[in-house]
Amino acid sequence: MQFSELIIKLGSAVTASSFDRDRQLDPILTGLAPIDTATAGTISYIEGDKFAKFVSSTAASALVLPMNEAIQAQASDRGIAWIAAQEPRLLFAQVIKLFYQPFKLPAGVHPSAIVEADVELGENVSIGAHAVIQAGVKIGNDVTIHPNVVVYPDVQIGDRTILHANCTIHERVRLGNDCVIHSGAAIGAEGFGFVPTPSGWFKMEQAGYTVLENGVEIGCNSTVDRPAMGETRIGRDTKLDNLVHVGHGCQIGSNCALAAQVGLAGGVKVGNGVLLAGQVGVANQVTIGDRAIASSKTGIHNNVDPGEIVSGYPAVSHKLWLKTAAIVNRLPEMYQFFKQSQRN
Amino acid sequence: MQFSELIIKLGSAVTASSFDRDRQLDPILTGLAPIDTATAGTISYIEGDKFAKFVSSTAASALVLPMNEAIQAQASDRGIAWIAAQEPRLLFAQVIKLFYQPFKLPAGVHPSAIVEADVELGENVSIGAHAVIQAGVKIGNDVTIHPNVVVYPDVQIGDRTILHANCTIHERVRLGNDCVIHSGAAIGAEGFGFVPTPSGWFKMEQAGYTVLENGVEIGCNSTVDRPAMGETRIGRDTKLDNLVHVGHGCQIGSNCALAAQVGLAGGVKVGNGVLLAGQVGVANQVTIGDRAIASSKTGIHNNVDPGEIVSGYPAVSHKLWLKTAAIVNRLPEMYQFFKQSQRN
Amino acid sequence: MQFSELIIKLGSAVTASSFDRDRQLDPILTGLAPIDTATAGTISYIEGDKFAKFVSSTAASALVLPMNEAIQAQASDRGIAWIAAQEPRLLFAQVIKLFYQPFKLPAGVHPSAIVEADVELGENVSIGAHAVIQAGVKIGNDVTIHPNVVVYPDVQIGDRTILHANCTIHERVRLGNDCVIHSGAAIGAEGFGFVPTPSGWFKMEQAGYTVLENGVEIGCNSTVDRPAMGETRIGRDTKLDNLVHVGHGCQIGSNCALAAQVGLAGGVKVGNGVLLAGQVGVANQVTIGDRAIASSKTGIHNNVDPGEIVSGYPAVSHKLWLKTAAIVNRLPEMYQFFKQSQRN
Repeated sequence: MQFSELIIKLGSAVTASSFDRDRQLDPILTGLAPIDTATAGTISYIEGDKFAKFVSSTAASALVLPMNEAIQAQASDRGIAWIAAQEPRLLFAQVIKLFYQPFKLPAGVHPSAIVEADVELGENVSIGAHAVIQAGVKIGNDVTIHPNVVVYPDVQIGDRTILHANCTIHERVRLGNDCVIHSGAAIGAEGFGFVPTPSGWFKMEQAGYTVLENGVEIGCNSTVDRPAMGETRIGRDTKLDNLVHVGHGCQIGSNCALAAQVGLAGGVKVGNGVLLAGQVGVANQVTIGDRAIASSKTGIHNNVDPGEIVSGYPAVSHKLWLKTAAIVNRLPEMYQFFKQSQRN
Repeated sequence: MQFSELIIKLGSAVTASSFDRDRQLDPILTGLAPIDTATAGTISYIEGDKFAKFVSSTAASALVLPMNEAIQAQASDRGIAWIAAQEPRLLFAQVIKLFYQPFKLPAGVHPSAIVEADVELGENVSIGAHAVIQAGVKIGNDVTIHPNVVVYPDVQIGDRTILHANCTIHERVRLGNDCVIHSGAAIGAEGFGFVPTPSGWFKMEQAGYTVLENGVEIGCNSTVDRPAMGETRIGRDTKLDNLVHVGHGCQIGSNCALAAQVGLAGGVKVGNGVLLAGQVGVANQVTIGDRAIASSKTGIHNNVDPGEIVSGYPAVSHKLWLKTAAIVNRLPEMYQFFKQSQRN
Repeated sequence: MQFSELIIKLGSAVTASSFDRDRQLDPILTGLAPIDTATAGTISYIEGDKFAKFVSSTAASALVLPMNEAIQAQASDRGIAWIAAQEPRLLFAQVIKLFYQPFKLPAGVHPSAIVEADVELGENVSIGAHAVIQAGVKIGNDVTIHPNVVVYPDVQIGDRTILHANCTIHERVRLGNDCVIHSGAAIGAEGFGFVPTPSGWFKMEQAGYTVLENGVEIGCNSTVDRPAMGETRIGRDTKLDNLVHVGHGCQIGSNCALAAQVGLAGGVKVGNGVLLAGQVGVANQVTIGDRAIASSKTGIHNNVDPGEIVSGYPAVSHKLWLKTAAIVNRLPEMYQFFKQSQRN
């Protein structure tokens, strides 16, 4: 694709470009590459200070840049075509879509798939080889179900939703439109409910529902459990990374992002726009307010206020944690002083 | 179901009920619901102080209550039928079974399943679509194997055991009666055994067995590894939540509960009745005594005595941890004092 | 197998043995067993002080021992045959191979497997029941693909590589020779890339490649993500345990070992010979130098120098961490002293 064609396709997403000044600089672009390993013919991008230095050495033919005139001039001086926007990462995400589309299973039901008699199929559905769709499942339009997926009975799947290979959707799951369930994820399996009795654990059957609203994504091998009653619910456009555990009865709001290996125990309430970094753990019944942020490995036992940023285990405000984490490393000195003072 | 019928079915599990005083209050119950979102016609339950306040506002027609006369009177005053027991959670678990049974695969071998010639099948076995059962596997009576499960050769599966979709049972696994293996779990795969040599890692083949005694449950996408020799063993009625890792050669006792994302390194010995909360990690060869408890995210490097409660990383007694965790947050003050004292 | 035959088969791997002194002691060995539960006819081994005491009581007929004359004499005195080497664990790993070979799927394509028309198959390939190999996949010689594996289009698989049941290999994956992907692992799925916008998350398509060099092993239910551009790469002979997450764009060197439940965020660079113990977490874009070691549960936010040993959260040198972790438990005393001092 010619650079000039790229600009036309991106339209108003581009705020400024080298093309505004020099229409001769119009390289042919054949692919994408990281800035430090890019070769001629590729388009790359920089974001943040760490990668800015590579503008002086990259072999990329085009760059996605921030709205920074010095960097833009540096690129122009080196004969590199560039486009820029206030949010270069968003612009680059739009560029990627022009060069790459993820694999799309062809429409139709593969002859080796098992689709039971009373399954309702929407239009233009793709069901891959060896997938198993059981009784009473309702599948919307343009749904893609990759090979070896298993859907238990009594499941509803909204339009354009994608189920990747080897994932499992259990009974009483409701998937909205435009959801993506990645490979190996297990949605709607029994919550971990056992009541201790003198003769051992008594199993609490999990009779509730698991609801994923429109636009939810669940990462590979993540698990979202079905509750004993009511719903486990994940709100619109919330994204979960790989190996995340969502316990039974959790209520997660919209537009959240939960990074890899986060674990929510049972009945956790998460507001809207919440960010939980990798390996965060949240205890039973805790409530986390809107737009709160927890940094990686935080262990949350108590409620978190809206907008709060927490860290550490047990979680405290990120500011306090930064202070105490630094002072912990002075403990050897402090302890020596303490011992000496005691002796005196 | 009529409330009066429910009481009859529950029998001696019910210690007291509104029916003892008012036989007119006999609503028809159609389902279960959480107390804060319950609608007319549902039965719900409260447990603990947090939900007790909802008795004054719930729209549920019936409640499972603790043996607390004030709360019982409050329900009666609002015209809500109720049943009560010393252990309301256990009573509620029994109520659920009257309203809900999990999906049961029909008996028989699905024509698309691959069952190799010398597999021994018990009576009344259900094998789902596209399941693969390899040579020399012995399957007991009333076993359920859901779609797309893979069983490697040389596996024994006890009566009434359930294998959920997409799980994998490797060679040399022995599953007892009444076990449940949830979706995506991998039982009996090779332990992580590599010996460092000057020319790189030398793989230690894992020639042992993986034994799950009767009544063991393994959560979705959990992994229980096969050892180099001897056994990895999980004792009777022990329950593992999702995404738990049990390293090769671990010996776990009976009636334990391991919450989500717990990880046991190799050769860990866990006693009976042990509770490990979410994201706990246990180092190689550690021994944990009977009825010990570790709170979430605890990192256990040293042996834990029977009955001990531990927290923190590295794990200490829960009492000490509570103290130190509180004082850590006073470190900025302490440090300032320390600096000042030094200057003087 | 006769003990004398074992010695012949092991050849130069054996540095010393009871056979050098007593050729009459030549038991028949039928299997392997842990030293504390071994029965007559088995060969076992000890390593380290913890198990040395069992030489006086074990019922094993033969032992793999360290080069320790006292222990060797003790075994001889008890009539136990033994072999010894500087690295007894390596010697024992070689012994195991004489008694046990892991299950090998028969060569050939199972009739129920779906192999699309233009797949390139090497020689002597085994493809198990219900496996699905999609368009344009290239498979080397002697490759084993177990039942219910799914391979997306545009994947290359090197010679002798093994894919265990229910794992998923996504588009744009390049697997080297002699790799092992364990059950349920997901290789090359989309990285977690979402750009925040006023109207919600904008998905960044992941257009890069996922490359596993020769001899890489990935544990059960682990996930290795595909990047937006460039490569996620795992170097030669690096081994990952179960439930490990490798974010998009990570570059891991050769001969590393990542224990269970380790998580690497995006763009992490790991050198050669690095050891990360269980549940370690590494933040975005961090660089870890060659031969560095992180102990279990370490949270790494900053770069780690080559050869450094780190612990704690946030990670500090292991030596400092040992000191501070001990002093943290003295905080109650220190705090009392601090309060008292302030009052004075």
